[in-house]
Amino acid sequence: MALHLVRKACGCRRFIRAFHGGISADPVPQNNGIHRIFSGIQPTGIPHLGNYLGAIESWVSLQEKCSSVLFSIVDLHSITVPQDPAVLHQSILDITAVLLACGINPEKSILFQQSQVPEHSELGWIFGCLVRMSWLQNLPQWKRKNASLKQEGTVGLFTYPVLQAADILLYKSTHVPVGEDQVTHMELARDLAQRFNKKYGEFFPVPTSLLTTMKRVKSLRDPSAKMSKSDPDKLATVRVTDSPEEIMMKFRKAVTDFTSEVTYDPSTRLGVSNMVDIHAAVTGLTIEEVICQSVGLDTAQYKVVVAEAVIQKFAPIKNEIERLKMDEGYLRKVLQVGTEKAKELAKPVCQEVKKLLI
Amino acid sequence: MALHLVRKACGCRRFIRAFHGGISADPVPQNNGIHRIFSGIQPTGIPHLGNYLGAIESWVSLQEKCSSVLFSIVDLHSITVPQDPAVLHQSILDITAVLLACGINPEKSILFQQSQVPEHSELGWIFGCLVRMSWLQNLPQWKRKNASLKQEGTVGLFTYPVLQAADILLYKSTHVPVGEDQVTHMELARDLAQRFNKKYGEFFPVPTSLLTTMKRVKSLRDPSAKMSKSDPDKLATVRVTDSPEEIMMKFRKAVTDFTSEVTYDPSTRLGVSNMVDIHAAVTGLTIEEVICQSVGLDTAQYKVVVAEAVIQKFAPIKNEIERLKMDEGYLRKVLQVGTEKAKELAKPVCQEVKKLLI
Repeated sequence: MALHLVRKACGCRRFIRAFHGGISADPVPQNNGIHRIFSGIQPTGIPHLGNYLGAIESWVSLQEKCSSVLFSIVDLHSITVPQDPAVLHQSILDITAVLLACGINPEKSILFQQSQVPEHSELGWIFGCLVRMSWLQNLPQWKRKNASLKQEGTVGLFTYPVLQAADILLYKSTHVPVGEDQVTHMELARDLAQRFNKKYGEFFPVPTSLLTTMKRVKSLRDPSAKMSKSDPDKLATVRVTDSPEEIMMKFRKAVTDFTSEVTYDPSTRLGVSNMVDIHAAVTGLTIEEVICQSVGLDTAQYKVVVAEAVIQKFAPIKNEIERLKMDEGYLRKVLQVGTEKAKELAKPVCQEVKKLLI
Repeated sequence: MALHLVRKACGCRRFIRAFHGGISADPVPQNNGIHRIFSGIQPTGIPHLGNYLGAIESWVSLQEKCSSVLFSIVDLHSITVPQDPAVLHQSILDITAVLLACGINPEKSILFQQSQVPEHSELGWIFGCLVRMSWLQNLPQWKRKNASLKQEGTVGLFTYPVLQAADILLYKSTHVPVGEDQVTHMELARDLAQRFNKKYGEFFPVPTSLLTTMKRVKSLRDPSAKMSKSDPDKLATVRVTDSPEEIMMKFRKAVTDFTSEVTYDPSTRLGVSNMVDIHAAVTGLTIEEVICQSVGLDTAQYKVVVAEAVIQKFAPIKNEIERLKMDEGYLRKVLQVGTEKAKELAKPVCQEVKKLLI
């Protein structure tokens, strides 16, 4: 099925084919043969190793291979739960610094702040008029989040998959890098595009999920859970801004098991397999290569090796983040220029949608 | 309580005091002493006698007495249920013609199309992030509408009270002419203003409902129900564009009762009392005066008298509607100019809200 994706000529077709290893891809009407990639990141909290390896690193690759790439700092999604405005404001600049430091190039990608492009909310409202309540009510993510908020979830939290669909379709995006947990929400964007096209004539490409081939990075303290920004155990999560000492300490204290040999078996040896996955990902080696290199090491020694590889990977990023954070004017300028570029793409699409409906 | 409303100097204070007869009015922080009136009308269907007497006529009075009045053609609310785009597009021009013909003066009031001011959707999204799901779920109107749609109501239909609150607060409106059925929704706008001010500092005036003193016009075929645009019985509803012949026929066939004398008792003689109410409203006479004038007439004769009064009232309006509908360019220009004025007011408020939150 993946081959359908690359039927039409496009500068990034070879890359998308490679990237597609193991993803669901349906034949989609392409946007005049242009691939456009859209992804969003919430500005709340510093990205961690899992975010870096699972998303940001592949974004950097995508911008190198594809001509039209948008990355949105989705602050309108962040406010679906209470935020401290001053903290949120700073977080938007911080995440901008992190993304630039990780290699997002504002000359190649459109990096912008969602709330500064009014068309996201406009299309969000219009799409809300095309989605039945029952579709959202049955989403497990909503039920789970609302339960964790003691049934006090907001309308924004409930409707955020609709805004997410608007984020994607507003740019007539063809491909969306997503985590596994977002695949259900992508179904809404796809369904909306299909129903809209059926009702109003061919307009939106039906976007395809790009699932990263990177396995999900697990918590260092509980390798059965994924690494998370909001883990209360500070040792569980390695952030891109952690000092070398912090990274080393977190890996030293990482939970593995009572077998000292380093082997790879994610079904029975979660902790050490997580180490191997991280090691392979940050060095660019295969699982076999890192296992081969670790012969003779016990897990305690191996954790130090992995920590050193992560420190080496993050050192230049951490330095660049610190440098960029000193230059708020530049960060604001990057966002402002990106927002203008995003508006240029969003405005005609939103206007056309309104003309079709009203 | 109503006097609190007029503590501060304002050109329209005397009018608002008069208009306030019998309405709930709390002491509200005024918008620097300025009263700003906002109301919306859906563009679906031609306004009927009830809309005219219950809303439009009082809007015309309001613009004569108050310096800042906004009337919005709320097309984003119309699309919460399926619409034929071509019909909706034409209806927006038609309702503009109707409002102008009824006396809305675009030099005195800001008459504009909601969907052309992106800030409505933007503030709608932001407010959705401040409203709990449970608030909307418990609204009887939603339950009723969703039941009538066989539980297939859209997210837009469910969340429309949030957009309505945004419509009002986007202009820092202080007063909102509403029908009785909208008072619950006004509570959401008031609650949002109060909670927003508490959290982010005094920003929004808490808007007050202006309930029209006009009794609700009833269906001519079932005087226990209100007159409605969507009544399947075409004889039930008198539209402002009906021909004199149509108006006469509808009144002749109006359901009254088996007592021939004209008396006023809305609790036991619904039909004839509806005639008396309409008669008083279109002539500007009191109930006592119209009863006095009708001595000696039986109800059949009286229905003709009322029909003639309505025809007389609507004749110039109908002529003006027809004239205006010939000049689409002018109608579009009126909306365009109004939309620009609305944007000028909306933009800084929305930007300030975003600055406070993000």
